[in-house]
Amino acid sequence: IEADDAPAIDAALEPLHAADIADLIEQLNTRDRRALLQLWPNGVDGEILSELDENLRDEVIAQLNPDQLAEAVRDLESDDVVDLVEYLDAPQQEAVLDALDASDRVAVEKALAYPEESAGRLMQVEVAKAPEHWTVGEAIDFLRSDIALPDQFYHLVLVDPRMRPIGQATLGRILSSARATPLKDILEETFITFNVNDDEGDVARAFNQYHLISSPVVDSDDRLVGVITIDDAMIVLDEEHTEDMLRLAGVGENATISDSVFETVKQRFPWLFVNLITVNIAALIVGLFDQTIAAYVALAALMPVVASMGGSAGTQSLTVAVRAIATNDLTASNAWRVIRREMFVGLLNGLVFAVVMGAVGTFGYGSALLGLTLALAMLINLVVAALAGVLVPVVLDKLKLDPALASGTFVTTTTDMVGFFAFLGLATVILL
Amino acid sequence: IEADDAPAIDAALEPLHAADIADLIEQLNTRDRRALLQLWPNGVDGEILSELDENLRDEVIAQLNPDQLAEAVRDLESDDVVDLVEYLDAPQQEAVLDALDASDRVAVEKALAYPEESAGRLMQVEVAKAPEHWTVGEAIDFLRSDIALPDQFYHLVLVDPRMRPIGQATLGRILSSARATPLKDILEETFITFNVNDDEGDVARAFNQYHLISSPVVDSDDRLVGVITIDDAMIVLDEEHTEDMLRLAGVGENATISDSVFETVKQRFPWLFVNLITVNIAALIVGLFDQTIAAYVALAALMPVVASMGGSAGTQSLTVAVRAIATNDLTASNAWRVIRREMFVGLLNGLVFAVVMGAVGTFGYGSALLGLTLALAMLINLVVAALAGVLVPVVLDKLKLDPALASGTFVTTTTDMVGFFAFLGLATVILL
Repeated sequence: IEADDAPAIDAALEPLHAADIADLIEQLNTRDRRALLQLWPNGVDGEILSELDENLRDEVIAQLNPDQLAEAVRDLESDDVVDLVEYLDAPQQEAVLDALDASDRVAVEKALAYPEESAGRLMQVEVAKAPEHWTVGEAIDFLRSDIALPDQFYHLVLVDPRMRPIGQATLGRILSSARATPLKDILEETFITFNVNDDEGDVARAFNQYHLISSPVVDSDDRLVGVITIDDAMIVLDEEHTEDMLRLAGVGENATISDSVFETVKQRFPWLFVNLITVNIAALIVGLFDQTIAAYVALAALMPVVASMGGSAGTQSLTVAVRAIATNDLTASNAWRVIRREMFVGLLNGLVFAVVMGAVGTFGYGSALLGLTLALAMLINLVVAALAGVLVPVVLDKLKLDPALASGTFVTTTTDMVGFFAFLGLATVILL
Repeated sequence: IEADDAPAIDAALEPLHAADIADLIEQLNTRDRRALLQLWPNGVDGEILSELDENLRDEVIAQLNPDQLAEAVRDLESDDVVDLVEYLDAPQQEAVLDALDASDRVAVEKALAYPEESAGRLMQVEVAKAPEHWTVGEAIDFLRSDIALPDQFYHLVLVDPRMRPIGQATLGRILSSARATPLKDILEETFITFNVNDDEGDVARAFNQYHLISSPVVDSDDRLVGVITIDDAMIVLDEEHTEDMLRLAGVGENATISDSVFETVKQRFPWLFVNLITVNIAALIVGLFDQTIAAYVALAALMPVVASMGGSAGTQSLTVAVRAIATNDLTASNAWRVIRREMFVGLLNGLVFAVVMGAVGTFGYGSALLGLTLALAMLINLVVAALAGVLVPVVLDKLKLDPALASGTFVTTTTDMVGFFAFLGLATVILL
């Protein structure tokens, strides 16, 4: 396609969904991407921009001239424009805002005034609403009149005279009810509103928990200011998961495979550095026992076995705990029970692997005492691993920190240190 | 609450959402749970059962008598009943099916005939549909007539005379259009149908990619048989994420913190055992160099530093790659570019940490040659780690295996082995 054949590109891309075109643009290398944008200047519309990865949006927007940009963003809903501009550099943000109508611009600027990752930024300000005393017939006539409606809406929100939402009716119920039915009689049972300052992650989890489709957002005076729809909540939930996973592994939360080498190094370096410090401390622990190792070199070969088994078991227990905290399944009320359970799991796995490694030490390395040392160290480290795996995220959560924040590094550090210390310490006592 | 006070329990639980009651039941221990169900026999309805964790559903259903069960499941949509019974033991499944009306029972049994985790199991068979030639007015009159409608629906699906879906109109557009408008003129632009045999994970990702709200499901003759709604897709996406995370850590994919100790051990044991074998092979590699270590005991303390840094860097690169594969951002077309990029990232991080560890060896352990050995080994292992982190999941994916399947174990095994071999091998050459 990159044979400078503009009509062919047009023909190939036109039938595709904006999300697919964005994916395609993301997969090109920088040179091809530039060539494509040059050849296909009118193709990139607001929807494609919305779907693009944040890192590339800057680059692509920089190549559009103001008219193209204005054209591209004009038809977007307010929440999509906010999503589009919130992480742009200041001059580019300005360029997009300038391209909007005055009223849209006010709405977007208002949304940008809410905290990052808040319900206020996620919501769209276009809401289908009706006074609380209306009937189905009045609502339908109103919707058919020449008013500006959101592109997609699923509920009609009822508001009192002070604009406070008092409930909402699904369009399905409205459509299937007689014209004379008061809207108040067909309100949905589950009715949850969010505050503009609510965290978008909490909003997304509430959508998933209560199977919400769209929910009103209110300001600090409880007045209706917007609505959040499930498709946006789903995207947030997806992002939160990715962040959790990346944080667990000690990677910057916005890492993607389209980042440059330099950005990637910057994201990964900090936690590698933390790991470097902790593992050097573990090395100092090993250093304490240099005379034991000198007398019994097989210890050097076997100590990573104890540490690695602890690391694996700790990571297992950690991952389950981080998920459980994220889904509110692990709370203060059952934390002790979960910790006790993990201890038993560690004990049981520890016993099994103690027997196995006892046999390996006794028969593989020809020393029953070495076998005993291995077995005891393995038992200790697997119990510690199971406990560390659940305690690290629970404590981080208690400290109001993200439980996934590089927990992996903390847990493996603990199991390395305990593993080395237990194994070499026991060896010093038992073997020397 | 567990003071045998039935009315108090009733009063406390009645106003709560089914999802919250289910969470509460999950957080109780077995004894309290039993007591609660005894005291609150009529409280548990179908919605609460749907929200319960699969492991507990068996237990709770076993305590309900057939009448209570019949009462509980009667009002559920077909997809909820399927979700409820698909993983129940055969006798309990039978009991629930017996409680259904004949027509519902047929629908549920038909759904159960579709493969596990397929679109056919996820869909509800209740669909709001209309002939293709209808107008808005005809549709509204039809919806107002006394027909059975789904509890929640967002589109009216247009079908041709052979029941093949040809498009769908949002209720919002129907409500805001004049009665005379043909439905054909207000169809939604994005129209995607799924086959009953499509994988539910693919369906969920398509919902997220194309911002779908509800989509028709067709059988092998392209006939409309059901509809999938975004709330169910969101739950699937959530589960897929959790599975990915748990698999990465080598934990059984259905692990939750409400599993028993024994179940948990069973889930975690297999990959711990795999790790045991691989780490013992790594120990054999270390054993090859026992004379080097005997001559230079500090090597024993420093070899975990090289291995651990490799493990951390490998896990970082792995996590990003697994996410990218799951979201289709890493495909055959850009795999080489990503691999090359990871290599550069490994090289750059490797150079930095080589300098740091060179200094630690030279000044901390007083040997420039040891510093050189450390530096070279660190560089080699960080490059290998970055490559292993992306190659392991890419190869698993090529082999049609889940890229997350215990990749963590494979990657850390590689970095352990390469780390030990490179460090001790270089030490043998340089230091002896």
